[in-house]
Amino acid sequence: MGYPERMRIALGQINTTVGDMAGNAAKIADFASQAAACGAQIAAFPELAICGYPPRDLIERPAFVASAEVELTKLAEKTAHLPITIVTGTVAAARADSGKQAVNAAAVLRGGKEIFRQTKMLLPTYDVFDEGRYFLPGKKQVPFEDVGITVCEDAWNDKHYWRHPLYQRDPVDELVADGAKLLISINASPYHMGKRAQRTQMFQALACRHAIPVLYVNQVGGNDQLVFDGSSFAMSAHGELIAQAASFQEDLVIVDTESPTVQYNRTFANESEAVYEALVLGTRDYLTKCGFKRVLIGLSGGIDSSLTAVVAVDAVGRENVTGIAMPGPFSSDHSVADARAMAERLGIRFEIIPITEGYGKMLDGLDPVFGPDNKRDVTEENIQARLRGLTLMALSNKWGALVLTTGNKSELAVGYCTLYGDMCGGLAVISDVPKTLVYELSRIGSQRHGGAIPESVFTKPPSAELRPDQKDSDSLPEYDVLDAILRLYVEEMQPPPRIAADLGLPLDLVRDIARKVDRNEYKRQQAAPGLKVTTKAFGIGRRFPIAQRFTE
Amino acid sequence: MGYPERMRIALGQINTTVGDMAGNAAKIADFASQAAACGAQIAAFPELAICGYPPRDLIERPAFVASAEVELTKLAEKTAHLPITIVTGTVAAARADSGKQAVNAAAVLRGGKEIFRQTKMLLPTYDVFDEGRYFLPGKKQVPFEDVGITVCEDAWNDKHYWRHPLYQRDPVDELVADGAKLLISINASPYHMGKRAQRTQMFQALACRHAIPVLYVNQVGGNDQLVFDGSSFAMSAHGELIAQAASFQEDLVIVDTESPTVQYNRTFANESEAVYEALVLGTRDYLTKCGFKRVLIGLSGGIDSSLTAVVAVDAVGRENVTGIAMPGPFSSDHSVADARAMAERLGIRFEIIPITEGYGKMLDGLDPVFGPDNKRDVTEENIQARLRGLTLMALSNKWGALVLTTGNKSELAVGYCTLYGDMCGGLAVISDVPKTLVYELSRIGSQRHGGAIPESVFTKPPSAELRPDQKDSDSLPEYDVLDAILRLYVEEMQPPPRIAADLGLPLDLVRDIARKVDRNEYKRQQAAPGLKVTTKAFGIGRRFPIAQRFTE
Repeated sequence: MGYPERMRIALGQINTTVGDMAGNAAKIADFASQAAACGAQIAAFPELAICGYPPRDLIERPAFVASAEVELTKLAEKTAHLPITIVTGTVAAARADSGKQAVNAAAVLRGGKEIFRQTKMLLPTYDVFDEGRYFLPGKKQVPFEDVGITVCEDAWNDKHYWRHPLYQRDPVDELVADGAKLLISINASPYHMGKRAQRTQMFQALACRHAIPVLYVNQVGGNDQLVFDGSSFAMSAHGELIAQAASFQEDLVIVDTESPTVQYNRTFANESEAVYEALVLGTRDYLTKCGFKRVLIGLSGGIDSSLTAVVAVDAVGRENVTGIAMPGPFSSDHSVADARAMAERLGIRFEIIPITEGYGKMLDGLDPVFGPDNKRDVTEENIQARLRGLTLMALSNKWGALVLTTGNKSELAVGYCTLYGDMCGGLAVISDVPKTLVYELSRIGSQRHGGAIPESVFTKPPSAELRPDQKDSDSLPEYDVLDAILRLYVEEMQPPPRIAADLGLPLDLVRDIARKVDRNEYKRQQAAPGLKVTTKAFGIGRRFPIAQRFTE
Repeated sequence: MGYPERMRIALGQINTTVGDMAGNAAKIADFASQAAACGAQIAAFPELAICGYPPRDLIERPAFVASAEVELTKLAEKTAHLPITIVTGTVAAARADSGKQAVNAAAVLRGGKEIFRQTKMLLPTYDVFDEGRYFLPGKKQVPFEDVGITVCEDAWNDKHYWRHPLYQRDPVDELVADGAKLLISINASPYHMGKRAQRTQMFQALACRHAIPVLYVNQVGGNDQLVFDGSSFAMSAHGELIAQAASFQEDLVIVDTESPTVQYNRTFANESEAVYEALVLGTRDYLTKCGFKRVLIGLSGGIDSSLTAVVAVDAVGRENVTGIAMPGPFSSDHSVADARAMAERLGIRFEIIPITEGYGKMLDGLDPVFGPDNKRDVTEENIQARLRGLTLMALSNKWGALVLTTGNKSELAVGYCTLYGDMCGGLAVISDVPKTLVYELSRIGSQRHGGAIPESVFTKPPSAELRPDQKDSDSLPEYDVLDAILRLYVEEMQPPPRIAADLGLPLDLVRDIARKVDRNEYKRQQAAPGLKVTTKAFGIGRRFPIAQRFTE
């Protein structure tokens, strides 16, 4: 029982950038060199590490695939002198007579050459994954020197784990049957709440069932809407955790067959803390990888913009964050006061730019067309939100700073937000965070900054302040009820009658919320990219038609 | 040679609505009844006609699939009395131990029952198609009473037609080998320029090679970004066109083995006219299927908004179209005059709402933050565009009318448009129409309305009029050059060096345009849904990362 022999294997948990082939390859070479210095015989790197994950339609550019092939060859040559074998994910041309023209593969480099290649067989094509769109699946996997090497999904189809497996074949079964005595699984597995526990359980079951040790290496870092948490690990043939890499930061862990368990601190066992870290990392990487340094946030004195500001400070530093209060005709006194207090405690730049006069002028222009019988309604509310969006975008243009959108998932679900208004921005930091969780994360973020968010922000009733005495609860149920409904409807795809029964709520209420979710699809399709932290985020992994009539 | 016996087969080219199961089934029953009255023995309807195409992630709602199954059974019962066999596309539960949980199938109804079912084997997973995401593929196809029935892609993999077939198997080959003497292909094949000719050629080759007659039935109508042109047809075993349904409208064509060729007028042999029709149909259906009646368009006096207005009039009638001129500080005199002249000739409502005063007030609020050394730049240009967007959205909110966005594909490609400004709107009518084609379509549209678009609109140099004497050509090459580059870069995925060589242009220029396309991905991901009319539209069929560093 155990490894083929005593071995030292390095988990190279790196943060790649999509399309930065040279930079990614340099990082692999650097980590491999460190691993070799620690006496590791093998260094394993994530899925598609050469080109970054997810490359999406860049795969369809022949020059992209060709460039990855060139870079892989160069990497092999550059690391030829190292006494180590490198296992890395990469993309390559399929060179077949039919089917997709690229493959998602694990390449094994040693002595300056690619000496082995394993092509991914199971191509995830669900939620945020589109691999059936890009890749020709492998037909067969064989162990390499008694080591089974799988790419992500290939180790995710254990029919003893899933009630309804997604694929007929199980590449791990086949590899073990062909003599694999150890499994290296290279991954690009994005974070969502509970995902880390799921991975551990699944691979524990796999290790135990096949009685082989398993090394799981994942990428880390934010790439558009996805945040990869890393959290690589190794398990013994008995399913014991024998090594654990950090979550949400790069790491290099050397797994030794005879070493004790290695446990790192930064794994954030508390899942809400993990979500907070995911938002920080996702925000930092989106900015860095897009070439931005500074951010702008509209501060309303409410909980959503407060959380966004705290996350932003952790992501890019207080000196790069500016908060803008934009009081309008219905803003309460405390809204600016709370925003200012928080900005001061966080140490970020703070500006006040009222929208009231611009609002008046816009109404002067519109009122003649609206006519004498016009009643103020959602139109005028939206004008206020849009003037705020316009103000933030003007500062963004002038300063070259990215606007962070502050809307939460509950609002986005039911359309309680203004398109081109508060939805303006380059990144929606908390758009996959339900309102109830927003409060929890705000506690975490506030505590990290000495209680930066004023207590009143936690206790005042949520309000958009777009008409006199407006409260969110005027048109929505309390957020704990709303979030419970939304989780079942959006994440679990349950029909309203079952949701009403499960939660003990009136069917009319549940149907009304479901209808709001359906009807506001048009807003979400124009929303800023948001960071995914639940099993089902609005964004690239949720694709509903707008013009449709289905109701349950 | 020929049909199994003399037969009359009806091509039921219907316009379905996604999710409107009862409405779609009623339409099938109605067309089947008409077909039976004409003596047809079989009536064939499009792919997924029961639930509408594309249902996208609605497929993942178990209640959606269950509802389609119920509706199919009801349809069978309701048409039991008709002396006709119905072939219709539908979605059904897969009921397998592993894999996707739904199938895309052709159901055969006769005498009140479903007597045969064919499951689609080849699942298009490219461009706008995501079928690998939803469906379990069929394993084998067998003829039904000597008739081969295929669903869309299953008849699209003729290895004699494609240089690089997408799939290994050819279901038509297999069906013919198993004795099929006639092929009925049911489809949901969206329009793009040249697609109709491609289909005809492909099926002609297929008919000739197998020496069997082929009946091709396609759906018609707009569904979000896709416009289905219909254009169903029948071919003899010699590859002669023996029946042709209309393009861009519903149709019921009875194909008789002994009848002569039937040629309809409304097939729009001129491809630019076809594009124009596609835009009209796509706009009309988006509005109708979303429950809107009226539209709003910002009229700048330029060619893009003029074309959009003319299309809108053809889509929903002049009484439902309002044009708004929103002159600003740098608007030329002719911009309002041209807009007004066109509105009068079209007979649409026209309003003028200047933005100059609101613009001044917004600058008053911002200038203190911009500081004393501020120079007017793109920031102030965008403020003007955003005040126009805000004005249109205010009218949209007040009147319940949908704003049509007026940007063309060339602008959207290089980011020559303002997010939350001129990009505001519910539907981007011409966002897949290159600027050079905009001129051509404007001629077509103008002529249909007695020359409604003033000649000066065609001849003045394009300008955004956001600063004094601004011209598009200040920062972009001439549109014929730009469009040639964009076609090769965006549609053909060619690398810049090859584009430069092919077009005889400086590499720097091509690289600059390519970089603009790449860098403006963030804008397009927040764009309004646009109608696809080329082989590669920005939208659901083009999925690029934002934070990426690949350059060719």
